[in-house]
Amino acid sequence: MSKSKMKGFKELTKVGDALRLLLRSIKIPQIECRKVFVEEGIGDVACEKVSSEADIPPFDRSAVDGYAVISSDTLSASVTNPITLRVIGEVKAGVDPKSVPSIRHGEAIIIYTGAPLPSNSDAVVMAEDATYNGGYINVVRQVSKYQNVSKKGEDFSIGKTIIDKGTTIKPWHIGALASAGIKEIKVQNPLKIAILSTGDEIVELKEYDGEKGIVDSTKLMLKALLKADGVHVIDLGVVSDDIDLIVDRIRFGLNIAHGVITTGGTSIGKYDLVVDTVERIEGSKVLFNGVRMRPGKPTSGAIVFGKPVFMLSGFPVASLAGYISFVRPSINYMRGLAEEPMPIIKGKITRRVANVAGVKTYFRVRIYREGANTFIEPLAITASGVLSTLTEANGLLVINEDIEGYDEGDEVEVIAIGPIAGSLNA
Amino acid sequence: MSKSKMKGFKELTKVGDALRLLLRSIKIPQIECRKVFVEEGIGDVACEKVSSEADIPPFDRSAVDGYAVISSDTLSASVTNPITLRVIGEVKAGVDPKSVPSIRHGEAIIIYTGAPLPSNSDAVVMAEDATYNGGYINVVRQVSKYQNVSKKGEDFSIGKTIIDKGTTIKPWHIGALASAGIKEIKVQNPLKIAILSTGDEIVELKEYDGEKGIVDSTKLMLKALLKADGVHVIDLGVVSDDIDLIVDRIRFGLNIAHGVITTGGTSIGKYDLVVDTVERIEGSKVLFNGVRMRPGKPTSGAIVFGKPVFMLSGFPVASLAGYISFVRPSINYMRGLAEEPMPIIKGKITRRVANVAGVKTYFRVRIYREGANTFIEPLAITASGVLSTLTEANGLLVINEDIEGYDEGDEVEVIAIGPIAGSLNA
Repeated sequence: MSKSKMKGFKELTKVGDALRLLLRSIKIPQIECRKVFVEEGIGDVACEKVSSEADIPPFDRSAVDGYAVISSDTLSASVTNPITLRVIGEVKAGVDPKSVPSIRHGEAIIIYTGAPLPSNSDAVVMAEDATYNGGYINVVRQVSKYQNVSKKGEDFSIGKTIIDKGTTIKPWHIGALASAGIKEIKVQNPLKIAILSTGDEIVELKEYDGEKGIVDSTKLMLKALLKADGVHVIDLGVVSDDIDLIVDRIRFGLNIAHGVITTGGTSIGKYDLVVDTVERIEGSKVLFNGVRMRPGKPTSGAIVFGKPVFMLSGFPVASLAGYISFVRPSINYMRGLAEEPMPIIKGKITRRVANVAGVKTYFRVRIYREGANTFIEPLAITASGVLSTLTEANGLLVINEDIEGYDEGDEVEVIAIGPIAGSLNA
Repeated sequence: MSKSKMKGFKELTKVGDALRLLLRSIKIPQIECRKVFVEEGIGDVACEKVSSEADIPPFDRSAVDGYAVISSDTLSASVTNPITLRVIGEVKAGVDPKSVPSIRHGEAIIIYTGAPLPSNSDAVVMAEDATYNGGYINVVRQVSKYQNVSKKGEDFSIGKTIIDKGTTIKPWHIGALASAGIKEIKVQNPLKIAILSTGDEIVELKEYDGEKGIVDSTKLMLKALLKADGVHVIDLGVVSDDIDLIVDRIRFGLNIAHGVITTGGTSIGKYDLVVDTVERIEGSKVLFNGVRMRPGKPTSGAIVFGKPVFMLSGFPVASLAGYISFVRPSINYMRGLAEEPMPIIKGKITRRVANVAGVKTYFRVRIYREGANTFIEPLAITASGVLSTLTEANGLLVINEDIEGYDEGDEVEVIAIGPIAGSLNA
């Protein structure tokens, strides 16, 4: 172990500054697109803006089952003052709008949901607001103009945007595209991220014999995070602490993916090994070398011809902090996506927590309810290698650099990462 | 249209009461399990409790690269008062713990991350806290007992629960299972829910010609919601407003699925058609027939031999309210899952909103940021058939029955359903 490997962190960068450096340096990649049936697009990202090619609905139509009327005919109708109208016909959904008869004052037409409104008619009395008897109805509730009518183009008029480029497709987008009769949509192929673990001590789960080495659990956790974020993961395996091997593998990853994650080397010696290694790659620039974050201080970032290299801790909790702080925002940026909020829960903290000045801290917490109150119990801040504190936690309390800490009983907001005992949604 | 079909809602049930009725009546199904590789289990539900079969770590090991020492030897070490220790060897990760030499006072051993701690040693000095020179190190920082040491069994001791039965597998559970050397896990097969649309006016997207009928956009939206919630969806198609056809199709769905959703019939006439139909099915019991909810008033629920039938509105926004209020909690209950919180955002409401007494209301809102402030702009409350208000919204404001409304500037909490312009996570 040479003296040069033992140097400390030169200068720690603030988390926000480090992220800005990354995003400023990343060259947004050309992501390929593919066509999918609208109903298969859930969770994908729209590659193009889609606008309505028609008015939806294509004509004024009834939104309910009931009676098409002229609204002014129902003025002051009530249970004690019912208004009688003559029923002159019936219109079902699916008929040609031109075939629908018109009505005159004093008349009504039985109409079903989705059926074209008769000309002259401007409202529909709901079925339960009238009683039918021998060719007449008694209307017991007044309707206003266009009440219970879906106006032509009310949902989407021609040219109106249904979904914007770069939008993650949600269930309601699928509904909206379908209602406009759009059957296919172009979506992004997944972003490709390659991931490499380093460390002489690290073994793959499938090769673990229960004794020798440390299982590469951090990489498996990160792969699961990437998959859940819709990323195609390329597993570059595990390499020992050998500069040439690491250089080769990162180069390979950069050739076939949009970015590379390395894990391992959380102590200074190894940490510098990976950073030194990345510096040897042609076109690379180390953007930050250690951040003011706890856990995850050794997290570093580099850029190689516009592609990011995220150097995360090999410790699971520290790598999670690195993933949330740097990898996820960069992925969203590369895909052209706005970041979606994480679930936030508000509660009273059960004991004092102190923060180190100028450091962004991720506390693992347990959120629990007692009666109408929600409590936030801080778990560990150290033990970034201890996964059990993450499986026991159901929340993360993020304390920003400018906060000194919280006193017992203070109200804080935490990111929920699991279910909360006894909770039902608001 | 007969007079009997025109009756109003007899009695509207409160949303919470209706859900309780459902959950009390649902018979939790026997869900089949399958074995998967741990790394493929992300998002699945654990079918069994998994406990650690070994101590993790299996022995005291170094958490960093550095020097194994006897902690008391470093007492008061500092830059101005370095303490000199003699380096007597080196321990790499992966070696047999029994092969590691022990140390005596005044000695140190070079140790790498994951390597077994020498006997007698009780701490590790981090590489950057010592300088190496000709077989000796100068330690410049005191270490306490077990500092930089991962103790045997510290993460998981034998028998400690790693994941409980009924837990949704998150990335950290995968990490934890892997670190304990567990390679496979039993997970639930997906719950099966069948979905049927009713209505003479409804056509499937693939059959829509741009003119006739209304596309079945609500079913596609609900299918996407179900898929995102990990449910296997069985599409029962569209049937016209024909009691015999509907009975047949619901019976078929109940035979092959754990529950059935129907959509359509949002006006009273048709609504009663589906409820009347369900009442004809042997063993069925209608639990509630209309709820105090806006939109989604006609939402109804029944139980057939312990399986739920959710009768949702055909209107997209109303059906979404019904899905969130009844379908999702029931699915979680059937799978034995705790409900996970939805993303919550707090902000100031930009205009007054009034609530109808005793009604639970889902307002679609637009959440936006201006400087350090977050604002909540209410969009539509009516127009439950208008999908464009959902694609324009990025949040839902849920007003409970006992709230009369909010004044402009009031702080409210909303469920985020999409990205917020300019937001970066906390």
